[in-house]
Amino acid sequence: MGRPTSLEVIPVPGIGEVARHADIARLILDACEESHIEWRQRDIVVVTHKIVSKAEGRVVAVDTDEQYRAVVESEAAAIVRRRGDLVITQTRHGFVCANAGVDRSNVSAGHAVLLPERPDRSAHTIRMGIERATGISIAVVVTDTFGRPWRRGLTDVAIGVSGMPAILDLKGTTDATGRVLDVTEVAIVDEIAAAADLVMGKATGVPAAIVRGLTWPPGEGRAADLVRPADEDLFR
Amino acid sequence: MGRPTSLEVIPVPGIGEVARHADIARLILDACEESHIEWRQRDIVVVTHKIVSKAEGRVVAVDTDEQYRAVVESEAAAIVRRRGDLVITQTRHGFVCANAGVDRSNVSAGHAVLLPERPDRSAHTIRMGIERATGISIAVVVTDTFGRPWRRGLTDVAIGVSGMPAILDLKGTTDATGRVLDVTEVAIVDEIAAAADLVMGKATGVPAAIVRGLTWPPGEGRAADLVRPADEDLFR
Repeated sequence: MGRPTSLEVIPVPGIGEVARHADIARLILDACEESHIEWRQRDIVVVTHKIVSKAEGRVVAVDTDEQYRAVVESEAAAIVRRRGDLVITQTRHGFVCANAGVDRSNVSAGHAVLLPERPDRSAHTIRMGIERATGISIAVVVTDTFGRPWRRGLTDVAIGVSGMPAILDLKGTTDATGRVLDVTEVAIVDEIAAAADLVMGKATGVPAAIVRGLTWPPGEGRAADLVRPADEDLFR
Repeated sequence: MGRPTSLEVIPVPGIGEVARHADIARLILDACEESHIEWRQRDIVVVTHKIVSKAEGRVVAVDTDEQYRAVVESEAAAIVRRRGDLVITQTRHGFVCANAGVDRSNVSAGHAVLLPERPDRSAHTIRMGIERATGISIAVVVTDTFGRPWRRGLTDVAIGVSGMPAILDLKGTTDATGRVLDVTEVAIVDEIAAAADLVMGKATGVPAAIVRGLTWPPGEGRAADLVRPADEDLFR
């Protein structure tokens, strides 16, 4: 591999409140122009699913905690664990997360945001919109904020991807000493999601960022690549 | 919060093979000088634990798979799950990970690298060395590569920290709509570790990176802040 280069992680502010049927690609293009962010080949656009879901109409009314719990149950494909109000679910996409990804923050009072139905398709639509307008090749990663067992605190992860592999497979690669690596699969889109969250934050109203300077091998990833099959998983 | 600024994630190449008793701070200082990387206030230095462990003499001879398994058992404080050759352990630090963090990649043949005994202290020592030489204030994050349940692929996480909080606590913070956030604890040092891994890689022999441009509230984090207490954990 060549000399590694630096990455830039660039917040895209100014997108504002997103309405149903909004064109997310257009909103990002306009926000980048407003902030004088010029596009580069192989930019990775990271977008929180929240604005994607709002544009796709994946918002429901929830006035009471009981209604919220009912929405969570209906969005869950399976319940993995339950303790008091905390419900760890598997979504229809295969993701294991709290409350089936149904979220009441950053949405108008009395409402909750669901996950996009097909986040890879959402990522692809955004990518096509930006590629058509700019004439360059990019990748798009749609994110959510998940907890994890064993470790406190939440991190952003990828739930949709277009234009790059989800997993970097180093099978057969040797380390600096010539030994074949034990670690063969790196979840690069999750690392990209985490990097982007450092500039997006939860309280800043910045729902998108650009990760610039990364190179990746050919391959079209899907979020399903990130789902560990149940029979390989010791913690279901 | 003010307008968010971009981050830079800068690889630090040229550190080379690390011997026992090596001064990691000095190696990073020299490598940065060699690569014309100038220090800035609040740079975050991210270091893979592997070179830290080597400098601290945390390397053992393992000629056979049986010896390797014995080292894993002796490094583990508890076994969380076991299936065939795969052992999910809790380390003495409280981290839950495969094989008690004992790793045979990027080390000379017939050897394995253990986790540092006190990774926060390791981070602190590196930080002091760099701060004394440069006169600026930095933070240091020591990392390892962990798998996780439910999601395929590995990501880098923090196992030691000095000079910044491990967790960003947003308790009481409101979102862009004025609602108090559900998400209150963000594992920022894990997101920093993930961001750095994008330029460090597993096969490139780049064991350190600088994350530049992040601001953080006062507070001295410890890796123990990242350990979810067993009684809060549904997956032990």
